[in-house]
Amino acid sequence: MKTKNIGIVKTEYFTFAEHPNELKLSSGKKLGPITLAYETYGSLNKDKTNVILVAHALSGDAHAAGMHEGDKDPGWWDAMIGPGKALDTEKYFVICANVIGGCKGSTGPSSINPKTNKPYGLEFPIITIEDIVKTQARLIDYLGIKTLLCVIGGSMGGMQVLQWVATFPERVRCAIPIATAAKHSPQQIAFDEVGRQAVMADPAWNNGDYYGKPETPERGLAVARMIGHITYMSDKSMEEKFSRKLKEKDYTFSFTADFEVEGYLRYRGDNFVKRFDANSYLYITKAMDYIDLSGDKLLPKGKHADIRFLVIAFKSDWLYPSYQAQDIVRQLKIRGLEATYCEIRSTYGHDAFLLEIDEETRLIKHFLKRHEV
Amino acid sequence: MKTKNIGIVKTEYFTFAEHPNELKLSSGKKLGPITLAYETYGSLNKDKTNVILVAHALSGDAHAAGMHEGDKDPGWWDAMIGPGKALDTEKYFVICANVIGGCKGSTGPSSINPKTNKPYGLEFPIITIEDIVKTQARLIDYLGIKTLLCVIGGSMGGMQVLQWVATFPERVRCAIPIATAAKHSPQQIAFDEVGRQAVMADPAWNNGDYYGKPETPERGLAVARMIGHITYMSDKSMEEKFSRKLKEKDYTFSFTADFEVEGYLRYRGDNFVKRFDANSYLYITKAMDYIDLSGDKLLPKGKHADIRFLVIAFKSDWLYPSYQAQDIVRQLKIRGLEATYCEIRSTYGHDAFLLEIDEETRLIKHFLKRHEV
Repeated sequence: MKTKNIGIVKTEYFTFAEHPNELKLSSGKKLGPITLAYETYGSLNKDKTNVILVAHALSGDAHAAGMHEGDKDPGWWDAMIGPGKALDTEKYFVICANVIGGCKGSTGPSSINPKTNKPYGLEFPIITIEDIVKTQARLIDYLGIKTLLCVIGGSMGGMQVLQWVATFPERVRCAIPIATAAKHSPQQIAFDEVGRQAVMADPAWNNGDYYGKPETPERGLAVARMIGHITYMSDKSMEEKFSRKLKEKDYTFSFTADFEVEGYLRYRGDNFVKRFDANSYLYITKAMDYIDLSGDKLLPKGKHADIRFLVIAFKSDWLYPSYQAQDIVRQLKIRGLEATYCEIRSTYGHDAFLLEIDEETRLIKHFLKRHEV
Repeated sequence: MKTKNIGIVKTEYFTFAEHPNELKLSSGKKLGPITLAYETYGSLNKDKTNVILVAHALSGDAHAAGMHEGDKDPGWWDAMIGPGKALDTEKYFVICANVIGGCKGSTGPSSINPKTNKPYGLEFPIITIEDIVKTQARLIDYLGIKTLLCVIGGSMGGMQVLQWVATFPERVRCAIPIATAAKHSPQQIAFDEVGRQAVMADPAWNNGDYYGKPETPERGLAVARMIGHITYMSDKSMEEKFSRKLKEKDYTFSFTADFEVEGYLRYRGDNFVKRFDANSYLYITKAMDYIDLSGDKLLPKGKHADIRFLVIAFKSDWLYPSYQAQDIVRQLKIRGLEATYCEIRSTYGHDAFLLEIDEETRLIKHFLKRHEV
């Protein structure tokens, strides 16, 4: 089938501000005003039954598809969203919002705290995936939408999918969690914690108070991102991409980057700090570590829920190993829910959810078609 | 069989200093004087045919067994070395030396550079595993020993075992590389590089010039060690040890360590910096990244070598996955060498080489008995 790209798109903003529109957070604290940056693709049908909510991963944003005026690169899941694509914008109305705690337009630690007129920094409250999803529900309300045909996302996006099921089961018809877990394992927490420690070890982090200062915790954040990148790839994909290839003809016998893989990691680390806020990295990873939707916390036994699941994992993903996806499926089946499990034979590791477009498209298109209203 | 512990031991020192006793390094640079800290256990027999050289891993040292006067804990492989143990000191004369580049008594970046009378810092030359092994050969010469009954070691220790085979094949009778690789894969290089970047990102590292200064790169080194610790354990062993257990009753909704695994990593990181030098971390990881003894570099085809191998890997070791050990065995078999391969079913991950004592003891004892002179 022929697909088309979405043209120019624009990020929009939705703010809920006045009492009682502050959000009561999982921690018990309140947050407000809250702005969500979001984008939409396609058109809402008359019955408002064609809505797909796309949830993004740790370093993603609201710009999932199409081009921003003047940009060279499209949104982060452009290959999946557009006319004829997996999330077919000729049929579906697709929404993607930046998570709170983030730094891409939604309220986060770098936003201005109305109480002090300065950026929140560490005054920003700790948020959870549940808090993130509750703000998304406010956005859906605002757009006049009652139920979602589908919630879909990979990695942390998949956690939001599961959280939608747990918090608003009556508002979800289909759920597609990809390369994700219902709860972070100690190894996943450990990788996040080391990333946070790398940021916090940077003196320029200054206890979160670095906005507008000449020094920002760039080096710490770059190290955190480098760790992340190793976990997003697989041993095999690194071997295929880099092997032991050198940047120069021979070893330099110095601490410069001898191997291409070293140069790549340094580049990715340095690049990330230009587009991401160190405090957001702390808040978002913490939200992921806190999620625990195992067993009855996802759906209480005996509670009726009319939701169909497509759970996707990738064979070489060792950051979110497939046994975690299988655990989700097991819990769903025990509760009598319709759940299809698919493990894609990819060598890309965790990154596969952004790269295995053909396989994902086949699975998702068919699944959506079967369940659309 | 009943085993005994070795009593009190002392580290000894061997220095080779005068021209022509400088060591010409792989990089082409020269290093001297060189001191090696080493320990020996058991007695050398008359024919000097009962010598086992133990090679240590990244953070190890010469103190492999027995107790130092006043210490509470024995050497790092005490469970393997002693009367009746795997390396039976009633029969064998066991030697272990701290690697050059290290910080436990052998010459390294924290040693005094005789040319400046200040610590070397980054003036210390980049060293390789081959350089390390060549200094060990000098020590063996000094002790009047021609050939080793066995060279044995895990992780970086295993690389030294393979390097002995490559550099001094006529001086080795048996070789036991454990949980190791003939060459670092890009993923292994990547983990090392991130550890180095964590150290170098610490402003207190100060381009390696921090000795005697009030600030040392403790935070960077702690982050590096935390990354290391994740890679030394397995997903499963972390699950068994920590699960999602909290330090307090509930989430703290702060950036303190909520989970036991976080507290553990912070503790291990903080503890490491008290006993290890940040520059040594850089030099030793670089030496590991440089090793490449694949194929003919380990042993040229057609060259006769009278060496027997026992290659040990661990099922859950994802830092040095068993396919790397199998590659070594394949290369040895192609060259007509006697090589036994054993993959131990452990859940401990890479740490298993320090923990699976019973299994290792059975394998190694039998292997040594079969091949002793």
